[in-house]
Amino acid sequence: MRSIHNTVVIESREKRQLLNLTESLREAVNAAGVGNGFVGIFSQHTTASVFISECQAALTDDIVAFLSDVVAEGKPYKHNSPEYSDCDRKNATAHLRALILGQSVLLPVVDGKPVLGQFQSLMFAEFDGPRQRAIHVQVLGD
Amino acid sequence: MRSIHNTVVIESREKRQLLNLTESLREAVNAAGVGNGFVGIFSQHTTASVFISECQAALTDDIVAFLSDVVAEGKPYKHNSPEYSDCDRKNATAHLRALILGQSVLLPVVDGKPVLGQFQSLMFAEFDGPRQRAIHVQVLGD
Amino acid sequence: MRSIHNTVVIESREKRQLLNLTESLREAVNAAGVGNGFVGIFSQHTTASVFISECQAALTDDIVAFLSDVVAEGKPYKHNSPEYSDCDRKNATAHLRALILGQSVLLPVVDGKPVLGQFQSLMFAEFDGPRQRAIHVQVLGD
Repeated sequence: MRSIHNTVVIESREKRQLLNLTESLREAVNAAGVGNGFVGIFSQHTTASVFISECQAALTDDIVAFLSDVVAEGKPYKHNSPEYSDCDRKNATAHLRALILGQSVLLPVVDGKPVLGQFQSLMFAEFDGPRQRAIHVQVLGD
Repeated sequence: MRSIHNTVVIESREKRQLLNLTESLREAVNAAGVGNGFVGIFSQHTTASVFISECQAALTDDIVAFLSDVVAEGKPYKHNSPEYSDCDRKNATAHLRALILGQSVLLPVVDGKPVLGQFQSLMFAEFDGPRQRAIHVQVLGD
Repeated sequence: MRSIHNTVVIESREKRQLLNLTESLREAVNAAGVGNGFVGIFSQHTTASVFISECQAALTDDIVAFLSDVVAEGKPYKHNSPEYSDCDRKNATAHLRALILGQSVLLPVVDGKPVLGQFQSLMFAEFDGPRQRAIHVQVLGD
């Protein structure tokens, strides 16, 4: 049984940005040398997510638009108010959008490779960029 | 340490349909012969989810109604527009609804059985049926 | 390879309440004596969640307000109707809010400790309290 981990570093370039991490994931799993088990992918941030989706520009635009709609700007968020919060970044909406998509993904590893369906990609979502972000990838198996 | 996987095939019969997978899960975990560890249940599709909920017809109707409400039909989704997307299935809402419920569930395995609370069931959600769907079940432990 | 589990019991005191479980998690992982692997944290309930967030009072208020907004009271939920449901607790909104945040969290364990980013905490969310709640914590690794 082996537990191997490493970190994928991402430099986001926009306030809101979705990126495809599938190739980085395949490389990390391959480098771990684990045949069968699980791989966990963990955003180390509360305003950036990892999730599974089809990677198509039209669809990722729809995902960003949906999250912008359901978590609207301009509401009286306490996290953005000096009266309640000493956080300089007025990023309550980034927290709430990241909460909806989640901050970890688990995938099976079979024969040394992560298992994804035909249209599934591992995606990264930045909600409060541009920033440097760290994604922890850990493989457990034999 | 063992890593055992198999596939549960589902034939959904409706456009939107919630099904209880708990019995299939118990059978898969029992067949794996793993005493203690984790079981992961992974939808191989971007428009079908797995999640944990109470399985009651009134509640599953409420879940479908909630998702239909928060992800409304009739918005100008790019994924549904020939201008932006070459996808024949106009299924942007199915993608967004599946994103909210998620595409994997992790559960503990103790004494050869998946651990669920008294009112918890493993549920499958079809958002773009009817179709044949594959659910990957993987057990890791000893 | 070891699989160690125990239960964290929570006494919620309000109808809706968010609590920080990070210290309980660190103690459970430390007690398990596993060096490297995964820890899973599982709510055993369909109306209480576990999730990752920054733990700041202003932000947790924003999370509760957001969920109260997106899952509105006063809609004709079947789960709350004697015509469709024999459930005495009229708690459809609690189910739907718990569904959005999710009922499990997976984290890596490295050198005997759960891995969390600088601003990440493990949070518990009660949506139908006050009640006694059980959180199953399971560590798998070596």
